[in-house]
Amino acid sequence: MALQLYIGNKNYSSWSMRPWVLLTGAGIPFEEKMVRFDSFDAQSAFKSVVAAINPVGKVPVLVDEGFVVWDTLAIAEYLAERFPEKHLWPSDAKARARARSVCAEMHSGFTALRSHCPMNIEASLPEAGRIVWRDQAGVRADIARLEAMWTGLLAEHGGPMLFGDFGIADAYFAPVCSRIRTYALPVSPTVAAYVDRVHQLPAVQTWVQQALAEHDFIDFDEPYRSRP
Amino acid sequence: MALQLYIGNKNYSSWSMRPWVLLTGAGIPFEEKMVRFDSFDAQSAFKSVVAAINPVGKVPVLVDEGFVVWDTLAIAEYLAERFPEKHLWPSDAKARARARSVCAEMHSGFTALRSHCPMNIEASLPEAGRIVWRDQAGVRADIARLEAMWTGLLAEHGGPMLFGDFGIADAYFAPVCSRIRTYALPVSPTVAAYVDRVHQLPAVQTWVQQALAEHDFIDFDEPYRSRP
Repeated sequence: MALQLYIGNKNYSSWSMRPWVLLTGAGIPFEEKMVRFDSFDAQSAFKSVVAAINPVGKVPVLVDEGFVVWDTLAIAEYLAERFPEKHLWPSDAKARARARSVCAEMHSGFTALRSHCPMNIEASLPEAGRIVWRDQAGVRADIARLEAMWTGLLAEHGGPMLFGDFGIADAYFAPVCSRIRTYALPVSPTVAAYVDRVHQLPAVQTWVQQALAEHDFIDFDEPYRSRP
Repeated sequence: MALQLYIGNKNYSSWSMRPWVLLTGAGIPFEEKMVRFDSFDAQSAFKSVVAAINPVGKVPVLVDEGFVVWDTLAIAEYLAERFPEKHLWPSDAKARARARSVCAEMHSGFTALRSHCPMNIEASLPEAGRIVWRDQAGVRADIARLEAMWTGLLAEHGGPMLFGDFGIADAYFAPVCSRIRTYALPVSPTVAAYVDRVHQLPAVQTWVQQALAEHDFIDFDEPYRSRP
């Protein structure tokens, strides 16, 4: 198999979910290499496995016949170049530029949403979400920005995905859709419908089912639940 | 003029420096639009100017005949596509992938270095740097990662820049080179020589001279100095 993708736990690893959903959704074959999170200490099993293939010591990592590509955005660009027939970025130059802007914005931003509402696919945390929504202006601002972004893109490109057909931008925001579901964050009907469409994508459904089958409670990824 | 680049203060805005140095270093004409930092409150003059052209309300923003591109990585990709004759990314596919990996790593990482050693071109802060180096393991880890990254790339591609000739990766790390100088962080001779070469690039020299001419003391960007 030419491509291997190293990922963390499917229930928790939002960064792993992005290239996995992208590859799967685009129908690009790859071998999955799961590295369970135990801790992020330098001595952890997770770090020792990942550091052996990637100098940054993080997942996801794509390996293409021994050549290592790290970081979700670089992986996305690499796949877009490697499989041009899949049109992972929009074909129109301006739409492509806009898709890159919103993915880069996700890559370094939405820090309030990411820190207060960590991805946790198997959990249902509407009460935690209600308190976060009430107390965290940063989370409300992040969701307001997503509302404007997604509503605008869906109107401009006609849906069902952000730029028409499924692509990198949808894979990039799939974990955000999962957070909105887990924490029951209040969103407009237009955004809720997009969240549902992403959730129903076969690639996302497969990831979610496999996340639900993990049953692996990682304390440092669980600010709102106690070990069962 | 086709291209306009909105930037913040040259002394402080590391994210603005990247596309400015890239455009200037590559010899791509553009019109500079300086928006002085006053504060990042929603009511600030800075936010009102930037929010009018960019939904994220941040600099840098590139405007190409009215089409808005935001976020440094998306701007870099846009310019690489728009000016293919400039070879802003390496021509070799694997080198290009590696350049994208290290830029994406910079885009979302090196948070300890970024928070403890904010860019401040006109300042000389070796004593603050000494204390940061002593107390902040995260800063030491960030510099160790840069040592490994830069030493490896310079050896692999033969210098003088990270991938041979000047390109996006060098523009991306130019503000990091500036921080290493300002805070006199201890680096190897190989890295120190690269930092010097970046500092001597005509585009960087022009940016630095214009930063020195600003004389604009922004309190929230000055953790280590008192207003003169």
